[in-house]
Amino acid sequence: MESVGKSMKRVDARGKVTGEARYANDLKPKNCLTAKVVHATIANGRVLSIDTSEAEKVPGVVKIVTCFDVPDIEFPTAGHPWSVEPAHQDIADRKLLNERVRLYGDDIAAIVATDNVACERAERLLKISYEEYDPIVTVDEALSPGATPLHPNLRKDNVLLHTSFRSGELGEIDYEQAKEKAAQKYGADQLLEQTGVYKTARIAHCHIELATSWAYVDTNGKVTVTSSTQIPHIMRRVISQALGWPVGKIRVIKPYIGGGFGNKQDILYEPLNAYLTIACGGRPVELEISREECMVSTRTRHAVRGEVKALYTRDGKLLARTMDEYSNGGAYASHGHAITASIATIFKDLYHDEYGCRSDATTVYTSSATAGAMRAYGVPQAVFIADCLVDDICAAGGFDPLKFRMDNCVGAGFSASNGITYYSYSMKECMRRGAEAIGWEEKRKAYEGQTGPVRHGVGMSIFMYKVGVHPISLETSSARMILNQDGSMQVELSATEIGQGADTVFTQMASEITGITPDRVYIVSTQDTDLSPFDTGAYASRQTFVTGKAVKKCGIEFRKKILDYASYMLDRPAEELMIWQNRICEKLPEDESTKIDPAAVWADFPDVDFKPFDLKDLPNGEDSILRDTGNIEGRPGKALLDMKDLAQTAFYSLSRSEHITAEVTSHCKENSFASGCSFVDLTVDMPLGKVKINRIINVHDSGRLINPQLAQAQVHGGMAMGIGYALSEELLYDAKGRPLNDNLLDFKIPTAMDIPDLETIFLELDDPMGPFGNKALGEPPVISVAPAIRNAILNATGVAMNELPMTPQRLVEAFKEKGLI
Amino acid sequence: MESVGKSMKRVDARGKVTGEARYANDLKPKNCLTAKVVHATIANGRVLSIDTSEAEKVPGVVKIVTCFDVPDIEFPTAGHPWSVEPAHQDIADRKLLNERVRLYGDDIAAIVATDNVACERAERLLKISYEEYDPIVTVDEALSPGATPLHPNLRKDNVLLHTSFRSGELGEIDYEQAKEKAAQKYGADQLLEQTGVYKTARIAHCHIELATSWAYVDTNGKVTVTSSTQIPHIMRRVISQALGWPVGKIRVIKPYIGGGFGNKQDILYEPLNAYLTIACGGRPVELEISREECMVSTRTRHAVRGEVKALYTRDGKLLARTMDEYSNGGAYASHGHAITASIATIFKDLYHDEYGCRSDATTVYTSSATAGAMRAYGVPQAVFIADCLVDDICAAGGFDPLKFRMDNCVGAGFSASNGITYYSYSMKECMRRGAEAIGWEEKRKAYEGQTGPVRHGVGMSIFMYKVGVHPISLETSSARMILNQDGSMQVELSATEIGQGADTVFTQMASEITGITPDRVYIVSTQDTDLSPFDTGAYASRQTFVTGKAVKKCGIEFRKKILDYASYMLDRPAEELMIWQNRICEKLPEDESTKIDPAAVWADFPDVDFKPFDLKDLPNGEDSILRDTGNIEGRPGKALLDMKDLAQTAFYSLSRSEHITAEVTSHCKENSFASGCSFVDLTVDMPLGKVKINRIINVHDSGRLINPQLAQAQVHGGMAMGIGYALSEELLYDAKGRPLNDNLLDFKIPTAMDIPDLETIFLELDDPMGPFGNKALGEPPVISVAPAIRNAILNATGVAMNELPMTPQRLVEAFKEKGLI
Repeated sequence: MESVGKSMKRVDARGKVTGEARYANDLKPKNCLTAKVVHATIANGRVLSIDTSEAEKVPGVVKIVTCFDVPDIEFPTAGHPWSVEPAHQDIADRKLLNERVRLYGDDIAAIVATDNVACERAERLLKISYEEYDPIVTVDEALSPGATPLHPNLRKDNVLLHTSFRSGELGEIDYEQAKEKAAQKYGADQLLEQTGVYKTARIAHCHIELATSWAYVDTNGKVTVTSSTQIPHIMRRVISQALGWPVGKIRVIKPYIGGGFGNKQDILYEPLNAYLTIACGGRPVELEISREECMVSTRTRHAVRGEVKALYTRDGKLLARTMDEYSNGGAYASHGHAITASIATIFKDLYHDEYGCRSDATTVYTSSATAGAMRAYGVPQAVFIADCLVDDICAAGGFDPLKFRMDNCVGAGFSASNGITYYSYSMKECMRRGAEAIGWEEKRKAYEGQTGPVRHGVGMSIFMYKVGVHPISLETSSARMILNQDGSMQVELSATEIGQGADTVFTQMASEITGITPDRVYIVSTQDTDLSPFDTGAYASRQTFVTGKAVKKCGIEFRKKILDYASYMLDRPAEELMIWQNRICEKLPEDESTKIDPAAVWADFPDVDFKPFDLKDLPNGEDSILRDTGNIEGRPGKALLDMKDLAQTAFYSLSRSEHITAEVTSHCKENSFASGCSFVDLTVDMPLGKVKINRIINVHDSGRLINPQLAQAQVHGGMAMGIGYALSEELLYDAKGRPLNDNLLDFKIPTAMDIPDLETIFLELDDPMGPFGNKALGEPPVISVAPAIRNAILNATGVAMNELPMTPQRLVEAFKEKGLI
Repeated sequence: MESVGKSMKRVDARGKVTGEARYANDLKPKNCLTAKVVHATIANGRVLSIDTSEAEKVPGVVKIVTCFDVPDIEFPTAGHPWSVEPAHQDIADRKLLNERVRLYGDDIAAIVATDNVACERAERLLKISYEEYDPIVTVDEALSPGATPLHPNLRKDNVLLHTSFRSGELGEIDYEQAKEKAAQKYGADQLLEQTGVYKTARIAHCHIELATSWAYVDTNGKVTVTSSTQIPHIMRRVISQALGWPVGKIRVIKPYIGGGFGNKQDILYEPLNAYLTIACGGRPVELEISREECMVSTRTRHAVRGEVKALYTRDGKLLARTMDEYSNGGAYASHGHAITASIATIFKDLYHDEYGCRSDATTVYTSSATAGAMRAYGVPQAVFIADCLVDDICAAGGFDPLKFRMDNCVGAGFSASNGITYYSYSMKECMRRGAEAIGWEEKRKAYEGQTGPVRHGVGMSIFMYKVGVHPISLETSSARMILNQDGSMQVELSATEIGQGADTVFTQMASEITGITPDRVYIVSTQDTDLSPFDTGAYASRQTFVTGKAVKKCGIEFRKKILDYASYMLDRPAEELMIWQNRICEKLPEDESTKIDPAAVWADFPDVDFKPFDLKDLPNGEDSILRDTGNIEGRPGKALLDMKDLAQTAFYSLSRSEHITAEVTSHCKENSFASGCSFVDLTVDMPLGKVKINRIINVHDSGRLINPQLAQAQVHGGMAMGIGYALSEELLYDAKGRPLNDNLLDFKIPTAMDIPDLETIFLELDDPMGPFGNKALGEPPVISVAPAIRNAILNATGVAMNELPMTPQRLVEAFKEKGLI
């Protein structure tokens, strides 16, 4: 490999530090109008009237629209690929502006003016009257008899959707019957049970760049929206739905972005922005929301409550588990039930229960901030519940949590009910390496029988994470490559760079396949839905895997066209040629001595009971092109032609002018699982309720790394996010449904001072499903951090903290309750 | 034909009238800095020093660069396709800013500031010292012995280039020898000679939108220039040359444009703009020049002088002609000698001389505004010279100008020396129809023997015009088509809409081939050189012909992909299907009764001695796909599938997801000639020097018209421009080389009050070289107007006006000289 696997500098590094990176706001035109959304000041009810007459008199005000003006169209906002089957489409439950108020901060009107001051003056002059209902902020309130249904047209109660998954014998019998069977097999006295209720908090994404967009109607009548989004092509389709316009009349542009974490995998204010420019005769209108609006009126991570029960034997064998889980979905469906279903799935699959597992999960509408996608899409909640339970079992049963996990975790070759198979399985190897690195055995021993107010603990948690959304949903990606006159090239994709380094790894992949060096590969970072090859966007840790295949397939096609032209110029068969470091070279047979033997790679993992893959066994035969590394496996001989000379001739030849480009679709029908775990060593100062993380180690098997340094940075970011999730972050509401800490002063994300050195270990296990042996990495790092910290606190103090975040207040209260302080 | 040949409304009509059309200035970002060019205030000399110290202190000034700071790189500015052969490359004779001042208004420094006021204040504080040489404003001054060479490194004298073309026997013998031969053949007393000196004026293009651009350095380090240009891809290459950066590091974006007429077929201030943003750390910098700057510091039409001689027989047969022509090229090469060579070519080819023609032409550097491309690229000058000469012959020899032209004009089947053949010849038919429309014979008779101060005249002139630049230069064009989820499509090209209606006719062509109705064909009007398929741009009346072939070829490929998918969905062979009005239909055999018989079309032109073309006789066999109208020749049967349903399935199918796009290159190796003529009836008020045009008729054979209404509009625009050229426009200089009328108050373009009703007649003669039987139309309408007016004045008054423009002052002076007033 020439480019893949190397830690090349980010292609956007210079732009980021010099300010050359062009964010949505940097490109707003000079003559842009400004829009401001008017939010409801009640949490549940109905707008009766909005008198705009005084507000319209404010100088500079161009247009005021209210919930009584907008199209009577309900639309969905989830960043999901579309389905042509109505049953699989997302829930359409909101309008551009809502007369029915379902949360404090709901969008009820919008003001467009020449400047922000005029907007604010006008807003103060609006006269709004409401009919107010009781707020139903919590899941219990929403489910209580007589609670107002928030979406009576869709659901008579506030249950958005319910899932009941069962595995193993629990598919046939219930938990009590399983218990009876187990009693017969093992003896009733050999059985132990553990119950628990575990809760996670609602948190905000806190991306640095706020949700922002600007829109205008273009020369051809298309409404053109420039937005900081992860999903430009999906946004185009949703704006089309929201306006009732054909999708061809909508164009979305996504420039450089300052973070998303899943919040921008939803459609936020862009349809309203599109509507506002139309309402203003096509003039450019910008709509940037504030931090406070972003925290309550965009999307949050689902707060969940999991009520669980486990049956296991005295010698540490899991027999059965059940979970009844409730997710607070907030006021609108957003991603609907998909995230809660993911919680139920991973809780069930992460461990093997002899009699199986029942996993029930419910998403509930409440009159509070809408929950949506956030890094790892429910899996952090699932793993928190599953791994709190495991350590509580271990504490009760006297098991070593590492050994218990080794014995009971998901096994090699596991195939999920939807057919995803754990091809390159490494869960146990990850655990082993993490345990060794942190000194698990020694520490567990050393920390036994501690006394005094300051105690030490070591804890762990594991995760599995699938790559992309196949086969639940569509995975499709197109790529286009364009040769320049100087022998450099553009790569055009719609899998977005959102800070995670996608543009850099795609550059490396394109370079790898084409033989054009990375400094001459220009990734087109801005997406334009009119032109950019279709791809659903940045989410589900899908890009290096799904889009990576499109890049590879396109690169093979592009390379073929270049070599065809070289063959014409040099009058030699294309098969005798290869591209190497920007030159057309003679292709020599590959040197056998340098060829990688896949079996040898796997030999490093003695414990992995998995055989190297024969390519012909791949489930999707069509995809064989993706496994073909083509002429890059040859060895370059004599250089014959510079790419620049080839390109100039191809452009300007009077005998054969040909502008070399390639464009392909890769429909991805493969999937795999990434594995990993977190190990934490920490100190708890009980009187202060203060947790100090001494060491934290994340171990990841994400297959082959495209860029090790970026991979490490990705893991660091996830770990820091996990620490905030564990210890400090929670979006709070009062009983009336009013947000209490919707700002970065009161909502506590960790600062650099709060983050210890972050240690990462990678197992680069070649995955046969990945275009370069790679699989998911973007989201996994956040998953197992919080439960590992929780379990280390349990190890240190014997106190099971069952609710996130584990703030000093909660810790002190728990330690007091246990008489420890 | 479903779409081609219909007068559909311009696709940008709504955008133009609502203000939704987005011009370069509309999209400038909020934080843009402003640049101002500092121009020399001498016409010939050298900058000795520029002291910027006081200017830099002006608040708001960010950067001042002078001719002493810029890269020491000379670059060309012509909007020509590149050649890989250095001998065929354009002349590189200027830097970003020039220390050597070659015209009044040369660019010697640039100021960048936060606003224009700061720029102007700073400019006033610059201290500039010059060494001054004698200005050489006219061709005679520039060629006089001892004149300072303006480009001593390139040319020892001021002759940019000289051409000597000869046809017929004059290739072997000289004029005097031909005369001897003719005397032997016809008898010396049967021979007549005519000499003349004809002059045309330097004029400005006067596009409404000034030359304007803005630039920044983007996230990926590319310098990105948004410019109002006709030639984005050529501009990219030239900026690369000017900066010494690889072309891949340059990106040019061309938004909606407010006119160009060839001035924007040159690279104007964009390389400087690119340099300035780099100098300012990549911050956005705008550079819009004023009307005054545009008139003297961009490009102009060459002022020419043609000294001619003709030999003919007493019964009106042309025997031989010679021309010695001089073009004032101004200070820089711009398009070099190409325009002057075009003058020499057309003078030679437009008429048939028994013994041939000698056509010598010279382009001369002078210290005045640079001459470059302007609508019809020298042909108006050539035809003015040729057709003044013809009417002067007719006046002297007593011939009817119509009959003389019928007898002597270029003939059917004519093949130019470079191989371009007059396939669909119609020159005489054009003349016949024009003569009939204006009532030529009656009027010529009626206007005989007039007396008194107010007289009437009728005049005519003819032209031939080739389509595109093949084989002199490269003609290549790529196209891309993209299917949307709603069954609509984008068409992406780099042949620019510059007001001429290109976007509309390409929409019609794409619709014609694909079966998707024009309202669902979205032409991508903005070009982006990183992404848009390569095409050299808008010039040479090449687009409907050259780019039209690319649209056709791409449409065939795109349609094939759609029908392949339809075949998959419907489980029927693609050959049985066609697309008709946004539906996949059964394809029935074409109805013989509605099929067009090409022979029948030609039968309308009894006098055209040309046989319908057999497709297999096409010179370029590869191109046969362009002659294939594929399944559109079928007849639609039962509708089977809506394009929207097909598109949605293709995007979102879980079994076969495919994003249907197509991209092709068409290397055009064909050419043809368009023909036409102008007829004018006018009244001259001799004491007032006032010319009133009573009727003016342009007759055009541009092959089949894609959009008759737009074609007519195009002709109207050209005729109006021709009237200005004839009667009022001239950019004047004083003896020191200072412009005298560089503004729209003193430079007289015609207003609506000056333009009579404009009559147009089209002959739609199917041309076998055109993708839809079409050929050049954009430039031709301007060509023959001025000589027709001149010849009508000659007819009215007997006075031969041999210099353009024929202003009242010149007319009065001429009438006085002749004793008419």
